[in-house]
Amino acid sequence: MNATLATNTPPSPTSVPAAALGSVSLVGAGPGAKDLLTLRAVEALAHADVVYYDSLVDDDVLDFVPDAAACVFVGKRKGFSAMPQQDIQDHMRNDALAGKTVVRLKGGDPFIFGRGGEELQDLHGYGFSVDVVPGVTSATAAAAVAGIPLTHRDVATSVTFATGHTTNGDVPDLTGLALSDRTFVFYMGISNAPKIASQLRHSGAPGTTPVAVIEQATLPGQRIINSTIDALEADLRTQNIGMPALLIVGEVTALGVPKSDSLIPLAPSPEPANDFAWVHHPMG
Amino acid sequence: MNATLATNTPPSPTSVPAAALGSVSLVGAGPGAKDLLTLRAVEALAHADVVYYDSLVDDDVLDFVPDAAACVFVGKRKGFSAMPQQDIQDHMRNDALAGKTVVRLKGGDPFIFGRGGEELQDLHGYGFSVDVVPGVTSATAAAAVAGIPLTHRDVATSVTFATGHTTNGDVPDLTGLALSDRTFVFYMGISNAPKIASQLRHSGAPGTTPVAVIEQATLPGQRIINSTIDALEADLRTQNIGMPALLIVGEVTALGVPKSDSLIPLAPSPEPANDFAWVHHPMG
Repeated sequence: MNATLATNTPPSPTSVPAAALGSVSLVGAGPGAKDLLTLRAVEALAHADVVYYDSLVDDDVLDFVPDAAACVFVGKRKGFSAMPQQDIQDHMRNDALAGKTVVRLKGGDPFIFGRGGEELQDLHGYGFSVDVVPGVTSATAAAAVAGIPLTHRDVATSVTFATGHTTNGDVPDLTGLALSDRTFVFYMGISNAPKIASQLRHSGAPGTTPVAVIEQATLPGQRIINSTIDALEADLRTQNIGMPALLIVGEVTALGVPKSDSLIPLAPSPEPANDFAWVHHPMG
Repeated sequence: MNATLATNTPPSPTSVPAAALGSVSLVGAGPGAKDLLTLRAVEALAHADVVYYDSLVDDDVLDFVPDAAACVFVGKRKGFSAMPQQDIQDHMRNDALAGKTVVRLKGGDPFIFGRGGEELQDLHGYGFSVDVVPGVTSATAAAAVAGIPLTHRDVATSVTFATGHTTNGDVPDLTGLALSDRTFVFYMGISNAPKIASQLRHSGAPGTTPVAVIEQATLPGQRIINSTIDALEADLRTQNIGMPALLIVGEVTALGVPKSDSLIPLAPSPEPANDFAWVHHPMG
């Protein structure tokens, strides 16, 4: 399969039997680390003719793409958009009409702040069925590396993922959200952190509520900073936190990984008497 | 490595050099389908001496475990808990003290309604460092198979994952949560669906708000039902929805996959003139 981009004269769809149509998959690449791709995502990449990928995808992930396929960067670098959203959609559609196997590779999960919905709607509007491959969303990856349970018995019965930067550059309305037994994760919230802190206070959260900042979760530059709603703005400035980074807000952040590596194992507890688990050994 | 469960007489930790200690990983197995495991999860399973797994993990996933390892079911079947939470923690700790490589395999992500936080705290308390491997959480998997973007430009700026069944069997306080531009996903909410519907209405959501019910997402028995807050209770009864199932509430559910397979591709749009994407071809 020729892997160049679609030409200006794709075949007329009325003359194309369904079997000749290509396909489009919206694939979540996970938070960055190559081994946090799912097996299904790897399989999709291994069969791609063309991969459109964005800036939240680590370049290592593209190792799974065949040599003959084209990898097209369509994200933002240094504030510069490599390709407008409408053009991405047009390219994918035309490539699929030309019979190609198209993968749209998105950082995290395609349906959490990935604009996957817009691309899906566009492709559905043109009659394509689209496979969506879910991915590990950045919030759960950040929580894992920081040892912060996003929900926790008696501490947090819900977790909200919110954008820290809406399409008009603002913070979403947080009215009524902040209760003590709720966890919040803000994606893309670093530049708007002062506004987020202000809205959280306005919504009823104490300024002492703990906040964890996780920069470049799962990547070599990973950093974890502990702060509070009141101290957040100053801490971000002092620590010079860059993107990508997430904010986790709530009492669960106080349960995060102990900072000391010098913990000594204590005596084991007695073997539990209740031993009626179903043990399969060896595996069939 | 002998793969039987820890004996009643693990070595005293004071006599165990650090290098002889085993390790514990809390690993997310994803929503069920075997190929939605991450590469890192597969790697962890391939090196396990003992795997403690719960009922949200599809048995196929255990194919990745070596034949010599023990797989211990510790979840619930037919309302019967195979092992109390404290016993699971005691077993894991004792196995690790005995030098074993322990994997705690949890459906979805370990830190979203998986009680991973409790296990992490317990193990930290005994001085173990614990690896947490994030997984695809059931909400994003259900959204993917139903074609429902959990967030969407101008429609939903946040998504909240809430338990539909707190430790006392109730529904969490949803006060202030229901605004029209927010999406909600309820885990384990089927038995409490009437209470959830009532709380959402009380919180300000119109009874006509669309709800999608996704049963056994990514598994062979998968079903997707479209309902509304007002119709939910009757629809669940009529359709005889069982567990596991998720509720997705909000306007985004109306964007879900079109039900017809008979859509005809329309004419492609003109090739976009703006063609300054960074094309790598072939891959190095």
